[in-house]
Amino acid sequence: MNQTIDTMRAHRSIRSYTDDPIPQTHIDEAMLAGQAAASSSAVQPYCVIRVTDNDKRQQIADLAGPQQKIRDCPAFFLICCDLRKHMLIVERSGNEYKTGLEAFLVGAVDASLFAQNFTLAFEALGYGTCYIGGLRNDLPKVNELLNLPDGVLPLYGLCVGVPNESPSHRPRLAPKAMLFENEYPSDEHTLASIDAYDEMYKEYLIERGANPATWSESIAKKFSYANREGLADFYESKGAKLS
Amino acid sequence: MNQTIDTMRAHRSIRSYTDDPIPQTHIDEAMLAGQAAASSSAVQPYCVIRVTDNDKRQQIADLAGPQQKIRDCPAFFLICCDLRKHMLIVERSGNEYKTGLEAFLVGAVDASLFAQNFTLAFEALGYGTCYIGGLRNDLPKVNELLNLPDGVLPLYGLCVGVPNESPSHRPRLAPKAMLFENEYPSDEHTLASIDAYDEMYKEYLIERGANPATWSESIAKKFSYANREGLADFYESKGAKLS
Repeated sequence: MNQTIDTMRAHRSIRSYTDDPIPQTHIDEAMLAGQAAASSSAVQPYCVIRVTDNDKRQQIADLAGPQQKIRDCPAFFLICCDLRKHMLIVERSGNEYKTGLEAFLVGAVDASLFAQNFTLAFEALGYGTCYIGGLRNDLPKVNELLNLPDGVLPLYGLCVGVPNESPSHRPRLAPKAMLFENEYPSDEHTLASIDAYDEMYKEYLIERGANPATWSESIAKKFSYANREGLADFYESKGAKLS
Repeated sequence: MNQTIDTMRAHRSIRSYTDDPIPQTHIDEAMLAGQAAASSSAVQPYCVIRVTDNDKRQQIADLAGPQQKIRDCPAFFLICCDLRKHMLIVERSGNEYKTGLEAFLVGAVDASLFAQNFTLAFEALGYGTCYIGGLRNDLPKVNELLNLPDGVLPLYGLCVGVPNESPSHRPRLAPKAMLFENEYPSDEHTLASIDAYDEMYKEYLIERGANPATWSESIAKKFSYANREGLADFYESKGAKLS
């Protein structure tokens, strides 16, 4: 057995926490572990904003759902793509900052390599975590609350705390539906993998006492309408370029 | 000490490998660990293509640099944002697939949460790894070589193998330049952090026998011209929507 792999496989999103605070030493450890992740040419195009202000937390919790766990968790972090430090450096050098989708993509990717290490470090220290995409419901408001300057682009949040629940593991698509050799499989193969997963997913929902939809049903619903349409305009208004 | 955190902190990109093959059981373990990472509403918008075909590997190695390590590594994986399975499900349900930047962003983020677990699992098993952004030099060619259908969007590669080198650790920006509380710091704070890092970075390059530029110099150069300009058009031609 391998402790690192066991820690990864033990992951479930934890949405309820005890009141135990998180010592600063644990946050420091998680930061160093997070920052040890690879970054494309070491550009380190991300930053983290810990939200400790109660009023700001409350407002983020509201716009993201509302989601009670954002109010309650002992530590809440906002993970951002950070192009600002590059902008300042280029400006100081007397050149003009040039950007495009490449910079935004590297920002989202490197922020997420960081975030997964950061999250796993907390889990290795005994905490539970939950990523929060819901704050993309209203990024202009998040931006205003935290007074983020140009180039700092909020991506998602992260709740951390000592677990106060022990949910079951949500099943995943089979590895053979995710890992291929030299080419992508036929649509028939893909749909057969989805059908097999649908059965497993329904069982999981029944076990949790949730409405027993299949995964396909939820995916079909989710991608039959455009979601969070203002996102690109918002990021572009903050200095990203997506074309 | 914590094995998981130690494994993360031990990371350096490894660019030279022994000929030892990677047993399938290790790849299976790394897949399960990778897939255990969080995915937004369990949409699992990613896939992995292992490239074992020598000719395809050779051509990817060429277009990405050339980069000898892509030819030489015992295992080479392409990490993709995968919207295709969602497209097929929506189509089968009789609706029209709707997408936007949100879906692409979630794809890039969830692929990277997966990829960091996948990578760390290999490292925990004793392998060295190197992410490969260079293949974004020519994604249409990568796409053609692997015959990727609409909705499958290559992001980056990953080389894995038993290390045949032991490079030093590339220093990172100080945590206080990356983690803030309730607001982003002043430009003066940011530039002071950068100046401190520049000194450290130069030392690191001198130690490695490399040309002793500062980090700022490399950033100023990198972001004074637009990089990989065809990226957005390529992804849109494959069914993504970035607006």
